[in-house]
Amino acid sequence: MVSGLPMTHSLPQIDSRHRRSVEPISTPDRLLLGPGPSNAHPTVLSALARTPIGHLDPLYVDLMGEVQELLRYAWQTDNRLTLPMSGTGSAAMEATLANTVEPGDRVLVAVKGYFGNRLADMAGRYRADVRVIEKPWGEAFTLDELDSALQHHKPAILAMVHAETSTGVCQPMEGVGDLCRKHDCLLLLDTVTSLGGVPLYLDEWKVDMAYSCSQKGLSCPPGLGPFTMGPRAEAKLAARKDKVPNWYLDVSLLNQYWGSDRVYHHTAPVNMNFGMREALRLLADEGLDNAWSRHRCNAEALWKGLESLGLEMHVPEALRLPTLTTVRIPDDVDGKAFSSYLLNTHGIEVGGGLGALAGKIWRVGLMGYNSTPENVNRLLNLFETELPRFREGSCVAA
Amino acid sequence: MVSGLPMTHSLPQIDSRHRRSVEPISTPDRLLLGPGPSNAHPTVLSALARTPIGHLDPLYVDLMGEVQELLRYAWQTDNRLTLPMSGTGSAAMEATLANTVEPGDRVLVAVKGYFGNRLADMAGRYRADVRVIEKPWGEAFTLDELDSALQHHKPAILAMVHAETSTGVCQPMEGVGDLCRKHDCLLLLDTVTSLGGVPLYLDEWKVDMAYSCSQKGLSCPPGLGPFTMGPRAEAKLAARKDKVPNWYLDVSLLNQYWGSDRVYHHTAPVNMNFGMREALRLLADEGLDNAWSRHRCNAEALWKGLESLGLEMHVPEALRLPTLTTVRIPDDVDGKAFSSYLLNTHGIEVGGGLGALAGKIWRVGLMGYNSTPENVNRLLNLFETELPRFREGSCVAA
Repeated sequence: MVSGLPMTHSLPQIDSRHRRSVEPISTPDRLLLGPGPSNAHPTVLSALARTPIGHLDPLYVDLMGEVQELLRYAWQTDNRLTLPMSGTGSAAMEATLANTVEPGDRVLVAVKGYFGNRLADMAGRYRADVRVIEKPWGEAFTLDELDSALQHHKPAILAMVHAETSTGVCQPMEGVGDLCRKHDCLLLLDTVTSLGGVPLYLDEWKVDMAYSCSQKGLSCPPGLGPFTMGPRAEAKLAARKDKVPNWYLDVSLLNQYWGSDRVYHHTAPVNMNFGMREALRLLADEGLDNAWSRHRCNAEALWKGLESLGLEMHVPEALRLPTLTTVRIPDDVDGKAFSSYLLNTHGIEVGGGLGALAGKIWRVGLMGYNSTPENVNRLLNLFETELPRFREGSCVAA
Repeated sequence: MVSGLPMTHSLPQIDSRHRRSVEPISTPDRLLLGPGPSNAHPTVLSALARTPIGHLDPLYVDLMGEVQELLRYAWQTDNRLTLPMSGTGSAAMEATLANTVEPGDRVLVAVKGYFGNRLADMAGRYRADVRVIEKPWGEAFTLDELDSALQHHKPAILAMVHAETSTGVCQPMEGVGDLCRKHDCLLLLDTVTSLGGVPLYLDEWKVDMAYSCSQKGLSCPPGLGPFTMGPRAEAKLAARKDKVPNWYLDVSLLNQYWGSDRVYHHTAPVNMNFGMREALRLLADEGLDNAWSRHRCNAEALWKGLESLGLEMHVPEALRLPTLTTVRIPDDVDGKAFSSYLLNTHGIEVGGGLGALAGKIWRVGLMGYNSTPENVNRLLNLFETELPRFREGSCVAA
C-alpha cells in the first residue's frame, strides 16, 4: 500500500535479510600516533555528547561566531570568510578549488607528496588547466624554483601543501606570498597537518585560501574542515560567470548562513561544532606560542630518541614537521609487522608510508592532545625494547 | 622566520586580536520538535564521545560493514553501494546527482516544496538540462501527472522528494518506479524525513538512488548523509565519459574505501559513524514495523489533539507525514512569537514555514527518539494553555 495511508492498510512484508542483531559498540581506547586521526581531548569528546540544539537557534548562532573568531586566531588571519566546512579536511580542500576555479583557469600545483597530487586531481575536475611541478617525496620547494615555475606557467592559482602528511616535510613559506602577488596569482595552502601545531601566519604570508582538518593539531575527531578565504580570493569568487559547480561547498551560499543573514543552507553538524568550539577554546587558552613550542619540544625529543636507537629520519631537520615524523624503516625490519604488533598488542597506532614511500617509512604523529612527553617516552621505550624482535633473523612472536 | 626551523630562531609576533577567552560550553537540553535536527538517543550521544580509532583500523573496517548492512535494512534495499556520506543530508543529495548526471543529461524534478527546488538548483550545477514540474506546497503528484511529464520531457533521471520537510507531505510512491522503467529513466528519491520513521521500501518501489540524513528518524546528530545507489544507477556511473566532477562525493572512489579494497580516500568522521552505528543498531533492535507504527500512533495523537483545539493541519490526512506535521497558524495568532516563547520559556523548538509557507505554518517534528506519547502530551498541553495568550487582543507576556 501507499505510504502515508493509515497503518491499518496492508504494507508490503518487511525484508529482514539485512537486519542484524549486534552488540552495543565497544571500541578500544587506542593511542593514535599515526598521521591522523589523533586522539581527541576529553573535553572535546564530552562536548560531542551534548544534546543537539537547532542549527538556527540563537545560541548556535553565537557559537558559530565564536568558532569563526577562534579559527582566525589559530590561523593568524583577519579573513571574514573563515568557517568550518561540514565535511572532513578533504571537503575543505575541495571547497578552495570549487569556489575559485573557473573552467580553463590555470592552476599550478607544487607537488611534493600525496596530497599535492590530490589537489591536482581535484582541480582537474573543476576543469582547470592543471600544471604540475614536482619534488621528490621528502624535499621542499625553494623560492627560486617557485619563481621560475610561476614565470613559466603564469597560473591563476598556485596550490601547495604547507605540512605534507605523506612525507613529514614542512614547506618554508616566507616569500611565497610575495612571489604570488608579483605574478598576479592566488596562493592556496594546505595546512591540514600544521594548524594548531606548527607556526602558521596566513596573513603575514599573504595566503589567499587555506584549509585544514579537525583531527590533528586541534584535538577534535575528524568531521569538520576549517576553511578560509581572503579578499583577493573573494574577488575572484564574486567575478565568477556561473554558479559555483558544487552546491554543498558554495561559499557564496555558506556566507549567507555563517554571515549576519543566517539564511538556512544545510543543517549544520551541530555536535561536531560543539567539539570544534571546545577544541579552539583550549588552543586559545594554551596560546599559540605555547602550543607550537610544546609540539616542537616533544618532536625534538622523539627525533633524538629514535636517532639514539640508530634509526634515521626521512626528512632533514630544517624541513621536519613537528607534528608528523617520518622514520625510515631499516632494511632488515618488517615495518608492517612491527606497526601491527604495536596496534594489536599495545593499542598504539603508527602509520605506514603512502605512494612512493609505501613500505619505506613509518609515520609518527605527535599532534594536539597527543603531543606529550609521556607519549614520546612510551613510544621510544617500545622501539627500544620491541623493535629488535622484528629484525630479520629474530624470532617474531605471532 | 621560516617555519620548520628550530624555535630558537625568531618568529613573527603572534597577533592576539582574535584570541578570545570563552567559558566552557554550556548549551541547554532543548526538546527539538522542529523539522530537524531532532534529539539524539542518549546511547548514540555516548557513542560520539568514545575515543576515536583510525579510519583504516581493522575494527573500524568491521564497523563500516555493520553500518552498511544496517542501512540496507532501514532502507529495505540490497544495494551494494549503500554508505553514509561524510557530510550532512545535503551532501548525500548532491552525491546522487554528481555521480550520475553528465553534462546535457535531462533531469526532471518534481517540485512540491523547498527541497525539490534544491534538487533542481544542484542538478543545474552539474550542467543538466533541468526540467521542472510543480505542485502547490501541500499537495502530492499523481501517477498520471508523472506519466505525462515523463512522456513529455523524456528525462534520464526523475528526481523527487518522498517526505517533503517543508510541507509535511508524503508522496505516494507505488507505481512510480514502474513508470520510470517504462520511460527508461532513473528514479532518484529524497528520503531525508522518512528513513526510520515512515514506511519505505526502496527495492520494492524500484528506486535507483536515494539519500537521507542522520538527525531525524535515526536519532543521531546531524553530520552524516546516508546514500544508496542501485545497479541501474551504477551502470550510468560506470559509463561516464569523464571523472565525476566532485572529488569528495565520487562514489567510484568511495567504493574502493567502503568496498573490500579499503583504499584510503578521505579520513572518515569516525565518531559520527560510531553514533550512526548505534542509531542503526537501535532501529534494528526495535524493528522497522515497530518504529513505523510508533511514529504513526504518536503523530495521529498529535493531529487529533491539535484538531480538538481548533487548529487545522496543512496537509490532508491521506498524504500526511507521521514524522513532520504542518499546522496552519490561525489568522489571529503571531506564530513566530509563540514559537519563540516555546523555545525561550520551555526549551522546546518548533519550526516555522519555509518559502511559500513562511509565516503560515508551524512545523512540528516527532522523529526517532522524540516520537513519544510524553512529548505529544507536553506539546499539546502548551498549545492548549499558552496559545490563547498569543491571539490578537490578548496580553502577551514579553
